[in-house]
Amino acid sequence: MATTYAPSSAVTILGTGGMGTALALLWPRKGREVRLWGRDPSRVERIARQRINEDHLPGVRLDPAIVVTADPARALDGATLIVVAVPSAFLGATLEDLAHRAGVPAPHVPVLSVIKGIEPGTSARPTEIVRRVWGQRPLAVLSGPGHAEEMARGLPTSQVVAGDQLELGIQVQEALNSSRLRIYTNDDPIGVELAGALKNVMAIAAGVCEGLGLGDNAKAALITRGLVEIARFAVACGGRRDTFYGLAGVGDLLTTCYSPHGRNRAVGLAVGRGERPETVTGRSLNIAEGVTTCRVVVEMAQRLGIDMPITREVEAVLHHGKPPRLAMSDLLQRLPRTEWWRD
Amino acid sequence: MATTYAPSSAVTILGTGGMGTALALLWPRKGREVRLWGRDPSRVERIARQRINEDHLPGVRLDPAIVVTADPARALDGATLIVVAVPSAFLGATLEDLAHRAGVPAPHVPVLSVIKGIEPGTSARPTEIVRRVWGQRPLAVLSGPGHAEEMARGLPTSQVVAGDQLELGIQVQEALNSSRLRIYTNDDPIGVELAGALKNVMAIAAGVCEGLGLGDNAKAALITRGLVEIARFAVACGGRRDTFYGLAGVGDLLTTCYSPHGRNRAVGLAVGRGERPETVTGRSLNIAEGVTTCRVVVEMAQRLGIDMPITREVEAVLHHGKPPRLAMSDLLQRLPRTEWWRD
Repeated sequence: MATTYAPSSAVTILGTGGMGTALALLWPRKGREVRLWGRDPSRVERIARQRINEDHLPGVRLDPAIVVTADPARALDGATLIVVAVPSAFLGATLEDLAHRAGVPAPHVPVLSVIKGIEPGTSARPTEIVRRVWGQRPLAVLSGPGHAEEMARGLPTSQVVAGDQLELGIQVQEALNSSRLRIYTNDDPIGVELAGALKNVMAIAAGVCEGLGLGDNAKAALITRGLVEIARFAVACGGRRDTFYGLAGVGDLLTTCYSPHGRNRAVGLAVGRGERPETVTGRSLNIAEGVTTCRVVVEMAQRLGIDMPITREVEAVLHHGKPPRLAMSDLLQRLPRTEWWRD
Repeated sequence: MATTYAPSSAVTILGTGGMGTALALLWPRKGREVRLWGRDPSRVERIARQRINEDHLPGVRLDPAIVVTADPARALDGATLIVVAVPSAFLGATLEDLAHRAGVPAPHVPVLSVIKGIEPGTSARPTEIVRRVWGQRPLAVLSGPGHAEEMARGLPTSQVVAGDQLELGIQVQEALNSSRLRIYTNDDPIGVELAGALKNVMAIAAGVCEGLGLGDNAKAALITRGLVEIARFAVACGGRRDTFYGLAGVGDLLTTCYSPHGRNRAVGLAVGRGERPETVTGRSLNIAEGVTTCRVVVEMAQRLGIDMPITREVEAVLHHGKPPRLAMSDLLQRLPRTEWWRD
């Protein structure tokens, strides 16, 4: 079977960000090699030597058995599952570069995406980028309320896996399930993948609301409406509304909008407090995917004929200099008379 | 028309807690008398003299036009809308006492409930208590993400009104709508009323999770599952699932579970940090409705044959001495394999 990976197989994680590193830590060995690949040789060499990813997960030691490498062949040779964990804007180029240097992995090798974004220009979801660059193969996404910092520290976390083949989802579930990390299967890969990308935009909006000091009542109302807005968008793209009421939807939205770890919320917070968007987004090593995603989604929503007022205001604030207070007040002014989930 | 109240009418609010007082402040005059009634003459006299409700809304001045009284006749005579804002456990006794001292208001006088609880012993919702004690009349509920402290300070707040007569809901909407307080109509009064009560139990659970230091990922997963649990209960009681994805459901759940103002969350937080439930619940002047509600809901769920694991664990911790850490671990152990909203 194409999607089966037996013991003495290898899991390769592409990307040494917080999530990639946390997954390398959590992936149980069970006779399986876990490889963590990064693009930048000097950063990778530092992680390999220190056994700590100081930039993204300071203080968390990497198991000595984890192979940390910048060598494409060492990363991909014989890999029986590849996890992609690089920012969506760089995924296409990364996959092309790897294919150029080490060849395209065989078409039976499955790819699991943990990326929460949409590709600028093409509007492609991460799994669509993988298919475009590396060709048809089993694909799945892992999403849900999972800040890497907490996962790496072993705090209890629940995630959802969804793939075009149920079998791959079940295999990921069996491989990753533990007392600390609970994996649930879901059969709506489009909805799960879009939910992960879209909630980042709502977290920026929630951060702006908070930064302006509008209070918890307003923030909760905004997020409630945001949930409706992103679910409507995903349904128009072929996803299912129910997914948005589960872990990948409301669950992930909550951590992203309320947790102090949330980088998208932090961008909104700073902008709401009066910092210039360019200053905020240029500062962090961590990419806040929502900054790019809001742009792509505004374009897609126009094509699909869907009204996405919160996304539009976030985009106007971040990319067209609209004052945050005006954006929030415009949002509050245009609310309908009946409950939001009906419009 | 029974439910019409013209200018030179009076709105009477029963209960000088935070919500009752905030609504008295927010209710626009427009030739209408606003009366705030409290049970305890000495407390009422102090509020009337100081024009501040120090216990519940310190620092917020009451408009001189608001009539503050402990006299049942002064409160109820000629009232064209009565708002009930007392703890659910005392509502029946309060209404009986008022009827005894000032007579039952005429059956055309509508009652709006802002109470978020269920009556112990009878399992009655607040509007059912009103109907039982004062007889059939137009009834509606106001609910949603609305901490009184923020409403009183004029921070933007969205609420839902739902009644057995659409007309009453629209009248409340028209009376209360302003740039700071947005009122939406909803036609599921059972769902809206139950959502307000049930979310308090989930907020206690969220507080326990937080108090135990389990992290934001676990808290978000718990709340996501809690949303499914309370929606399922409300549907079995005649409410609608959709209501739980709107302001009265997920919206109110968010403020209650995340806001520092939330008294139910605060109870859970203290218990999760190791305080004894009796000590915590005995300390506050504000009643955390969830402490009583979890008991009633466990009984009701048994009768209805519905599984409510989170509610059951909260009840076990608060009323049967179950250690919080064991309760949370039991919850995490018994999770199903697929996403929660399907079970």
